[in-house]
Parts: sequence; structure tokens; C-alpha cells
Amino acid sequence: MSVVDLNCDMGESFGAYKMGTDEQILKYVTSANIACGFHAGDATTMRKTVKLALENDVAIGAHPGLQDLIGFGRRDMDISPQEAYDIVVYQIGAMYGFVKSEGAKMQHVKAHGSLYNMASVNKDLAEAIAEAVYKVDPELILFGLANGELLKAGERIGLRTGSEVFADRTYQEDGTLTSRRLPNAMIESEAESVQQVIRMVKEKKVLCQQNKDISILAETICIHGDGPNALAYAKKIKQELEQADITVQAIGKEK
Amino acid sequence: MSVVDLNCDMGESFGAYKMGTDEQILKYVTSANIACGFHAGDATTMRKTVKLALENDVAIGAHPGLQDLIGFGRRDMDISPQEAYDIVVYQIGAMYGFVKSEGAKMQHVKAHGSLYNMASVNKDLAEAIAEAVYKVDPELILFGLANGELLKAGERIGLRTGSEVFADRTYQEDGTLTSRRLPNAMIESEAESVQQVIRMVKEKKVLCQQNKDISILAETICIHGDGPNALAYAKKIKQELEQADITVQAIGKEK
Amino acid sequence: MSVVDLNCDMGESFGAYKMGTDEQILKYVTSANIACGFHAGDATTMRKTVKLALENDVAIGAHPGLQDLIGFGRRDMDISPQEAYDIVVYQIGAMYGFVKSEGAKMQHVKAHGSLYNMASVNKDLAEAIAEAVYKVDPELILFGLANGELLKAGERIGLRTGSEVFADRTYQEDGTLTSRRLPNAMIESEAESVQQVIRMVKEKKVLCQQNKDISILAETICIHGDGPNALAYAKKIKQELEQADITVQAIGKEK
Amino acid sequence: MSVVDLNCDMGESFGAYKMGTDEQILKYVTSANIACGFHAGDATTMRKTVKLALENDVAIGAHPGLQDLIGFGRRDMDISPQEAYDIVVYQIGAMYGFVKSEGAKMQHVKAHGSLYNMASVNKDLAEAIAEAVYKVDPELILFGLANGELLKAGERIGLRTGSEVFADRTYQEDGTLTSRRLPNAMIESEAESVQQVIRMVKEKKVLCQQNKDISILAETICIHGDGPNALAYAKKIKQELEQADITVQAIGKEK
Repeated sequence: MSVVDLNCDMGESFGAYKMGTDEQILKYVTSANIACGFHAGDATTMRKTVKLALENDVAIGAHPGLQDLIGFGRRDMDISPQEAYDIVVYQIGAMYGFVKSEGAKMQHVKAHGSLYNMASVNKDLAEAIAEAVYKVDPELILFGLANGELLKAGERIGLRTGSEVFADRTYQEDGTLTSRRLPNAMIESEAESVQQVIRMVKEKKVLCQQNKDISILAETICIHGDGPNALAYAKKIKQELEQADITVQAIGKEK
Repeated sequence: MSVVDLNCDMGESFGAYKMGTDEQILKYVTSANIACGFHAGDATTMRKTVKLALENDVAIGAHPGLQDLIGFGRRDMDISPQEAYDIVVYQIGAMYGFVKSEGAKMQHVKAHGSLYNMASVNKDLAEAIAEAVYKVDPELILFGLANGELLKAGERIGLRTGSEVFADRTYQEDGTLTSRRLPNAMIESEAESVQQVIRMVKEKKVLCQQNKDISILAETICIHGDGPNALAYAKKIKQELEQADITVQAIGKEK
Repeated sequence: MSVVDLNCDMGESFGAYKMGTDEQILKYVTSANIACGFHAGDATTMRKTVKLALENDVAIGAHPGLQDLIGFGRRDMDISPQEAYDIVVYQIGAMYGFVKSEGAKMQHVKAHGSLYNMASVNKDLAEAIAEAVYKVDPELILFGLANGELLKAGERIGLRTGSEVFADRTYQEDGTLTSRRLPNAMIESEAESVQQVIRMVKEKKVLCQQNKDISILAETICIHGDGPNALAYAKKIKQELEQADITVQAIGKEK
Repeated sequence: MSVVDLNCDMGESFGAYKMGTDEQILKYVTSANIACGFHAGDATTMRKTVKLALENDVAIGAHPGLQDLIGFGRRDMDISPQEAYDIVVYQIGAMYGFVKSEGAKMQHVKAHGSLYNMASVNKDLAEAIAEAVYKVDPELILFGLANGELLKAGERIGLRTGSEVFADRTYQEDGTLTSRRLPNAMIESEAESVQQVIRMVKEKKVLCQQNKDISILAETICIHGDGPNALAYAKKIKQELEQADITVQAIGKEK
């Protein structure tokens, strides 16, 4: 039987600034990527979000980002691999504080925004991040873009990895995402995106923009928590996956 | 035989900004209070400082402060106990990241500047900080001002505590430090300060400003790492303690 | 004929974080207090908000706050008068950048949150802020709590001042606001709060909690831009003032 | 007779962190680029540095940088032209606050680090920065790398510009600096660097790495304020220029 994880970014509020609908979306996802205070989130939000995830039996992950709050970690920065290593160790550690203090366990690490994107194509950054995760805790699962450098770096160092796919994005022949700068980067039709993701999970294939089937491993699906239809979409995708006989559960759970 | 710990703040550099003489002072102290990125320090500095401490066989502590980099954590802020709890969990956690990734162990937690001072007299803040430390790791040793609220809160919750004294400060009848706003707050004579601290360690007494002996427990002595004579003073105090047959070693070490 | 200004805090968004309903509330107020990037706001938000205010013919003010983004400038901090002076000069200057680049004029300065509250009762801080405003531009109007220290400091240094009242707060015999820690600090009834404010404007009196009339000067009324009923309340208060034959216009406008 | 300006970055301290030797170097330079709080500097440092510059009769410039304190503004970030515009308006404005409050005048704007470097080659960023300067105050002089995009953008919009050369860097045939990633980027010999800069000022030529003379306009020379020999080098270059009959004075001064 097929199994897949649904992950979503959360804990992105900051002080008086509220973001996201964490309480609602936690009902539909199985893994929470919780911001660690660099691109978003703060100590208080982390504590609350860890508790909320526990209450909803959703697996907890650290979601480290670039040190760019004003840019929400979405602006590429020319950081060195050593800097990437350091900020990832720091942020996973900070999350450990809240996970340990709540008597919980951390399941995974997923890099955020530009850090994720840069590490998907930059081998040196990918290795630095994988090493950071491994050295803090070799039991952690490292999420990364399917077929990307981060995933490969995680495998090389001996981490369990989570190959991540996007329901609403199209793919290129080499297994990478179509750049958002190109037309057809996004799948606008909800029905089509659901069909694509079900096929990725069950057949391990996706029809790329060059009109060929390519191999893809869909261990975890990224659900966007923002946007007006986020909640409805999360609910729908979970239902459709289950109706297609796919078990939706946290990647770290015993199968 | 008497035993005492010498602790010093370090890891206070930030990005391009350098502060302190950590490499030198590590030769004379036994416990390092390493800044965690809120009042000072950053991820890269934390990694380097943890490694330096390990190389010098100096015990490692987290040194959480107020979220006030521009004020170096030295300006009192009206934070709630919940906020104190959250920022302490976060910062201890961040330090854990570096300690774990270096295969090391964290010995203690010492709050910085205004957070330390406020928690010495404010019971609610003291309890929040003690709870944060306890919940992240009940094996940690909580440093606090001798006779202060933080120390008492640590004892109540079941933490091992480190009663801290200052070699160069005078004391009041109630066991607290003479306020820096008053004359005679500081002991200017190095010889006098050394005699005071040796007496505190060996006799558990100090002559207060009201000209009476009061009880004081000197488990760890705070050495200031800044100031022009910091290094020379650290070296001297260590020598004098040892000449007085006092063993200078990290508080967490088996005796 | 009576005249009054309606002011409201705005431009409080930060990066990806949105706050407030500036576009709507600008239709009802006459002076905008625009955040300057310390407690809230950022460069991009400042530019947009200055433009919005100009489009709505609303007078522009700088709204400097404490350097405490995570606390939204609402936590008292033990800053020196010199620090207060420096951060106010900086923030007014930053706002000047946007005002000048849009070919506009700055009307006033209103301190935010804890900076406002501390300066209302602390003469040294009040004088430092008044001096900062005066030295950057002696034509600026300094807003301050009616009967408070900031207002007095502004008058002493030779600034035009704007005596500010709160529609929804009760007053004490000495002319200050009832502390929010006490019951009866807030006027819950909208009708009552409207009647109080109209009386303050027309009769320069308010019935204080000690059941006596005291003198109060209501040159500008603070409208809260947050809260679920902010917009409806702003609209209502403007209508009621106009129905009571009070001209609602920016304080700096020729009468 | 030949004339040239000597400019130096300063005001880069931050809170408890001290950087640079501003008081000394102000004796040798004619234009001060004062950090504005984004990559370095803070409100208190800005006030002090503006005063120091005035006391030394050194012309004052704003030195805006990327919002990256931890990276000292030296890490390229993928910011949009609109973001560049906004952060430059903000920072020039903040500097205006201190310049106006001291009754002084701002002479120029020089972008810092990565912002300077990116704008030297990226036309869109260059135009955004030039527009920001122009709209805040069209009398400001915009500094930029000789032959670079920023300088051209400044000229196009109608600003007076300051063509900047580096004494200790080598040049390429197209008039740009040799990348620091290449060997021979730096001129190690002090004597050679002095000869190069004198020739640039007097003959408007420099021998490039392709062994040809190229045209270069040297209106202002960048002096590095950090590094162990900064002071001695500043003193020496000033003396050598004067001995070569070159008048060293602020670019904005009447000739």
C-alpha cells in the first residue's frame, strides 16, 4: 500500500504579527515545519506551535531559514557553506529547546525558502546543511526537493531523507521544478494537481514539461499554509489521497 | 579541602564585531558562559567558542540574555515571566545545537546582564527562568547571585545550583550586592578583592558594608572578561586561590 | 467654532507581515502617525504609507518607538535620555527621507507605545524627545498626552504641541489616564466615549474618576487602528464630532 | 591644478561593539561615509560621528548598506530595485536627522559593500539608488565606482557624481576593478599604489592588467579605515598627493 506524508510550514507569526492558520491546518497535515526565529517565528510562537502540533499528533520539524526577517528568508543571499552550517545548527538547536521542554521528539528538518532553493542546486550548501543536521542528531530526517542536491547530500552523509514534491508545480525533464519565472510553472487546476500528486505517490512518475514520464519519489508533499484557499486545498488533497488508497501519515511513523 | 569554580562570559563577538579575549582567558577559568545570540554572540561565534572551550577543557554554559543587541542586554526591560521562559528555552536550545554537534555536554546556565539582575530580585522572573532550565534539561546547573531569588527558584524546582560571588563587589547586610549607584560598590584594591573572595570560599563569610560578617556561599566566582586588566586579574585570582589551597575546577566536575 | 484633529497609528506592517487597515482608516482620520521601523514598519511600508496619506490628504507624522520589534515597542525599557534623543532623531530623519522624496511635508511627531507612556511621566525622557524634535525641525508639532510631561517639555523648548486625548479611556483627578491595570480604565460604551470626547473638545473639561470636572485640552484625538471595530468606530466618532459642529481637520492646517 | 577628495567609511560601531579609529583617520580624509544602521552603525554612533566630522571639518556623507548587520552588508542579496530604492531613502533620511539636528549639511551618498558592488554592475539597482538620492535631495553628490553603472545612473538622472578610484586595486581593460577572486587584484606595494593613484588624478589614466593605459576619472579616492596600517596609509597617501601638487579637499567644496 502507498504511504505519503503531508508537510506544511507553520509557526511563522512574529511578536504582534500574526501569520497563518496553524490551528486549522494542523488537522490535515502530518508533519509541521516550524519556523525557528530567523526568517520568521519567535521563541513564544515556537513554544505555542510545538504544543499545538503535539495536541494534533502532528510530527515536529525544525524549519531553519536565512537570517532575513524583513525578506522572510525568500531573498537569495551569498552565504558560505560554513555560515549555512552554523545557522542551521543554531536553529535546530533552538527548536530542540522547545521540543525537549515539552517532552516531545523532533522528526525532521526542512530548510526554508531561499535556503531550501539554493541548497537544492548548490552542492556545497547542501552538504553543509546535511552535515549540520547529522551532527546535531543523526536520527533526524532531512527533507529536500525530489532529485535535488540537498537530498543527495543527506543520503551521502547517512541521514534518512524525505523526498519532497509539490502538488501545484510542474516538472522538467531533469526532475527539477519549472522555474516560477517561466509560464506553466504552476498547475492552476486543482483537479490536475491532485491527479499529478496521486500519480507521483503511486507510480513514482510525473509527466514533465517535455511531455515525457520521469521518475520521482514522493515521500512528503508540501502544502502551502498561506493563500486564501490553503485550508480547503489541504483538506481536499488529504481526502483525495485517502480515497486513492494512500495512507497519509508522518514520514517518521512506523509503517 | 575547599573548591571553587571560576566563570567568565565569552563568545560575545557578533559578525564583523570582535569582543573579548576568549582564547587567553580560557586558560584561567573553569566555566565559560557563552552568549547565545540575543544580547551578543551569533551562530558562528557560538560554534567557535564551544570548540575553544573544549580545547581548553573548560566547562560550557549557555548565557541567555534579553533580546537587545544594541543595548548588550544591559537595559532592564519589562518582560513577562512567560517571555523570560520562552527566550531562555530558545537560547539554551540554540547552545545545545552547538554542544551536541561537537559531541560535548552543557554544564550550566547563567543569565546575562539585566536578565540576571532582574531575576536576582524578581521571584516571578526567577521561577520562569528556573523552570525553563529544568524543562530543557534537569541535569543543568543554574548559576545565580548568592542569596538571590534565581538561586532560590532553582533550588525549589530541583535544579543543582551554583551560588555566584563577585570578587570585586561589596555586599550588604541582607547578602545582596551594593548597588553600583552607591559609592563603595566596587573594591578597587586587587589585594582586598582577592582576600575577600578567599574568605568567602574558605569561611563562607564576607564582611558587609554594615561592618558585620554575613553568610555567603561561593561556589563559582564571576571573572569579568572585558576591561583592560581582565587577563592579568584572572591569572592572579587563580594563582592566589590555589596558593590558599583552594582547588579551582568546574562546578560540575566530580570532586 | 471648535476644531479637533483625529490621529491614528499606521504603517505598522513589516516585510511579509501585514497589520492594520490603513487604506480604509485614512478616510476618517486627519493625521497619520507612521511607524519608522523600530517598533514596527519598514522602509517599503513607510514609502507606501506616506503615499497613501498624501492621496487621502491626511497630514503625515513620524511615529518613533523603542528598538523592540518583537515587543512592538510596548515593553518599557530602561533607556537613557540620550538614547531616547538618538533614536528619535534617527526615526524622524528616516521618515523625512520618504516625506522629502514624495515632495511632501511632515506635520508632527508622536512617540509610540512605551516611549510615549514613559515620556508622559518622566521629565528627562520628555525633554530629550522634545529636544530631538526641535533640533531636527522646530516647525514640527509634538503630540503628547494631555497634561503630561512630554507636552510640557515641548512647550518649554518652543515647539508647537498637540494635546492628545483618548476617547475610550477614563481620567484621574490629576489629569492623567486611569492605569489599564485598574478597573474602569476603559469606557466600554461607545455612546459614552463619544459624549466624553465631544465635551473635552467643546468645554475643555472631563469628568474624572473622582467625580469632579477637570480641565483638559483636546487638540487631537487618538483613534486606535487595530481591534475589530476600529473602522466603524473611526467613522462614527468623525460623524458625531461633525454633527456636534466640531470641525475635524489636521492640527497643522490653517484654521 | 589637480584636486582630489579622500573618502573613508566610518561610524561603524554598534552598541557595545567598537570598530575603526574614526577620531584619528578624520585628520587625513576629506569626506566621511557614515554608516546608517543597516549594515553597521546605530543612532548614537551616527550622532557622535557627525559631530566628529564637523569638528574635523570633514564633509559628511550617508553610507547606506544592505539590511544585514550580521554580514556587515558584505553578502550579496537578491534585492529588487524597489527594495534598494526604499532602503536608500530610509538611510539617507536617518542621516539627515543627525545632520539637520547638528545644523550641518550632507555632501554625498556612497553605497556600502555589496550594495555598492552590485550597483556598479547592475543597471536596474544603479538607477534605483540614483533615483532615491535624487528624490531625497538633488543637491547630493553620488559616489560610485569609476566607469561603473551607478555613476552612469547618477549622471543620467542629473546628480553631480563622484568618480571613485581605489589606490590599492588593479584595473581591467574595461575600466572595472580586477575581481578579488583573481590573483593580482591587490597592489601590495605601497609605493606602487601611491604612484598609480597620483597618475590617475593627474593624467586621468591607469595602466590596466592587459598592459594598456585606460581612461579613468579619479575625483575621490577610497581609503580603507580598517586594517592594521589604515592610519599610516591614510597619512602617507595624503602627504604624497600634496607633494605631487594635488589639492586634497572635499569634493563638494568650492574650488
